[in-house]
Amino acid sequence: MTLIVLNFKTYREATGDNALRLAEICEDVSKEYSVKIIAAPQVADIHAISEAVKIPVYAQHIDGVGYGGFTGHVTAASLKAAGASGSLINHSERRLKLADIEASISACKSFGLATIVCTNNVATTRAAAAMKPDYVAVEPPELIGSGIPVSKADPGIVKGSVDAVKKIEPGVGVLCGAGITHGEDLKAALELGSEGVLLASGIVKAKDQRKALEELVTGA
Amino acid sequence: MTLIVLNFKTYREATGDNALRLAEICEDVSKEYSVKIIAAPQVADIHAISEAVKIPVYAQHIDGVGYGGFTGHVTAASLKAAGASGSLINHSERRLKLADIEASISACKSFGLATIVCTNNVATTRAAAAMKPDYVAVEPPELIGSGIPVSKADPGIVKGSVDAVKKIEPGVGVLCGAGITHGEDLKAALELGSEGVLLASGIVKAKDQRKALEELVTGA
Amino acid sequence: MTLIVLNFKTYREATGDNALRLAEICEDVSKEYSVKIIAAPQVADIHAISEAVKIPVYAQHIDGVGYGGFTGHVTAASLKAAGASGSLINHSERRLKLADIEASISACKSFGLATIVCTNNVATTRAAAAMKPDYVAVEPPELIGSGIPVSKADPGIVKGSVDAVKKIEPGVGVLCGAGITHGEDLKAALELGSEGVLLASGIVKAKDQRKALEELVTGA
Amino acid sequence: MTLIVLNFKTYREATGDNALRLAEICEDVSKEYSVKIIAAPQVADIHAISEAVKIPVYAQHIDGVGYGGFTGHVTAASLKAAGASGSLINHSERRLKLADIEASISACKSFGLATIVCTNNVATTRAAAAMKPDYVAVEPPELIGSGIPVSKADPGIVKGSVDAVKKIEPGVGVLCGAGITHGEDLKAALELGSEGVLLASGIVKAKDQRKALEELVTGA
Repeated sequence: MTLIVLNFKTYREATGDNALRLAEICEDVSKEYSVKIIAAPQVADIHAISEAVKIPVYAQHIDGVGYGGFTGHVTAASLKAAGASGSLINHSERRLKLADIEASISACKSFGLATIVCTNNVATTRAAAAMKPDYVAVEPPELIGSGIPVSKADPGIVKGSVDAVKKIEPGVGVLCGAGITHGEDLKAALELGSEGVLLASGIVKAKDQRKALEELVTGA
Repeated sequence: MTLIVLNFKTYREATGDNALRLAEICEDVSKEYSVKIIAAPQVADIHAISEAVKIPVYAQHIDGVGYGGFTGHVTAASLKAAGASGSLINHSERRLKLADIEASISACKSFGLATIVCTNNVATTRAAAAMKPDYVAVEPPELIGSGIPVSKADPGIVKGSVDAVKKIEPGVGVLCGAGITHGEDLKAALELGSEGVLLASGIVKAKDQRKALEELVTGA
Repeated sequence: MTLIVLNFKTYREATGDNALRLAEICEDVSKEYSVKIIAAPQVADIHAISEAVKIPVYAQHIDGVGYGGFTGHVTAASLKAAGASGSLINHSERRLKLADIEASISACKSFGLATIVCTNNVATTRAAAAMKPDYVAVEPPELIGSGIPVSKADPGIVKGSVDAVKKIEPGVGVLCGAGITHGEDLKAALELGSEGVLLASGIVKAKDQRKALEELVTGA
Repeated sequence: MTLIVLNFKTYREATGDNALRLAEICEDVSKEYSVKIIAAPQVADIHAISEAVKIPVYAQHIDGVGYGGFTGHVTAASLKAAGASGSLINHSERRLKLADIEASISACKSFGLATIVCTNNVATTRAAAAMKPDYVAVEPPELIGSGIPVSKADPGIVKGSVDAVKKIEPGVGVLCGAGITHGEDLKAALELGSEGVLLASGIVKAKDQRKALEELVTGA
């Protein structure tokens, strides 16, 4: 089943009450069109959203630390308690050290949280897959927020990532992202072998978020 | 009025439901003994706690970014929406770059959030005060979690910070922390000129958190 | 005496043999026009340059750690041994945590190295000055490498920094940078109260580095 | 041929003139006992050492950036120009982001520098190997500087790393480190399938560095 991960980032249109509204739109579209949509709001918004919607809610970032003296860190335990069911890890706007990515994946597994590790090219996709997250999401940083879909601008990075993961760790799913907005972008991404997409501004900053999301999933 | 800031860190005894329980204890003690207690839980716990208690709830960390493409960052807007009224900044377990401390203070001011910047010695206290947060909290890192109170082990750092802030920016309050557990530690801290304390394990990991907190405030 | 700090960054035109050549140009111009020019090459180039020229050679960055288990860090001891006489600290392309800036200043002082702390606005200039480096160099990040001189585009940040430092720590010198290329830029910077400039691409990437440097110092 | 990589860290006994002396000891022992010894001094010391000895000199850290506006970074170009022939990457005392490790490996390859990526467990060894450096060096952080050799305390991590690399990228060599001091430690490391060791304090801080190094290589 096609997976759509909507990264709310810290956009005004997806913070606080706006985040709640957008998550509800995600839930509506998910039900109506039978697609799996994951909402990834800011950590402070997770609790209110988790109480309001039934679609999965992911964090945008998690620190690979456990219980203890780790002031200011985002732990798997706290995300779980707030109602999250997974987390993005190593997004290009929140890159992590290798050892911390691995520790984050482990921490998520301990608390039953799903993991999507973001990468920037085929080589880092290989590395991320070798640590066995649930998904790797490859995104060329220069296309993020550009409106130019990775599936058109750089199909080789998606195809290359899919092939590399199949060899190294076939149980890991591959998503792609950067510049994804329309149904045709999603369709192209799936044809390249990815199982879904990670997207943000194309939906979050659309004049009509619901319509944009519907266009994305029905065009597919 | 004496200020007590309780940093929940990521301790198991102060995460999720435990965080809620501890915040309620803080509220009870605050009311009963007429002291100002601030609860600083993990970001994911802020929303549930803010809905349950009336004492101020602070974040343990904030990133100095605004609305936009800042995946995985903690923004003032999201903290405000979740019910926080302030934030620790630059705790020794979550040190920030100078430019980010300044940007965090600005972001908090824009959203009406109070700021407590943590520092590690008199020189960094001077620097932090020069950026005009509401409070500076000086904590020698080697004493954090040690059980040896800064007010006894290194009174000079507290006195020196108080004097330095008076010269550079007298409107900024001074707190101190590290090893603070008992009423006598708090009393000593106040006698050195600080307006309150920042503490964590002494209360959070106490067998009886309520009793430990009562001892702290009544001993003063 | 006007101070000119030439940051070699990692430009090809200022790496390895090119760095040596550029340092020699700096020395020639320094002698001929009696201006103080500091060359700030990459750390790996410091030793060869220090052996070849007599003008001061500064590092572009230093870590605030001492002798010990600090693999991969740049120490004051090693810079001193290689012939450096100072270091930039906290450049906008290599921002540091507050505590590390303070530790870097201390480490430099222990080894007799001069310190120039870079800042991005008046508030961080105040903070940096409060830690008593030899100089603060204020540079609005958005103008760095732009060719638009700070002295023209944002004179208020220079004037504001000069005034702030005078109040907080009058013994600290103020430099400014970003977009500085020509003699008139330098002149304007001095008129605003700064004691010199920090610059890079305007000279390093000039077709004729010697001519560009001569234009800078003679136009002043 | 057994590979011995001596990390000088920032120890006083391996900085400046002491670094030069230690590199000469490495060269002498290397010649006399026909073992391959790599000296990894601080970046500022590389130039002087490279001019004095003929054994390979590696950096302890490299940033994955190229020519340009990257103030304060350590580039492959500058290391090459200073005489280095390789670099450690991602040492536990200087951890890097995943994307930067990959960029560092690429940068080193462009300049003909060899790469040794340090890792902390089998999972990160897998990830590092997937990016095809010349070597992966696995070191449990808790044993570094402990004097308790990894080959005795945690043989499983070495064996597991060797096996994992064979599967994922057999062209990558495996080293191990942490607590290695004596010939028997080296011998045990080789028996577990590693091709050599990465070590530091056991030699650098020995009363007689030459004798310690001879003991290491002759005991093997």
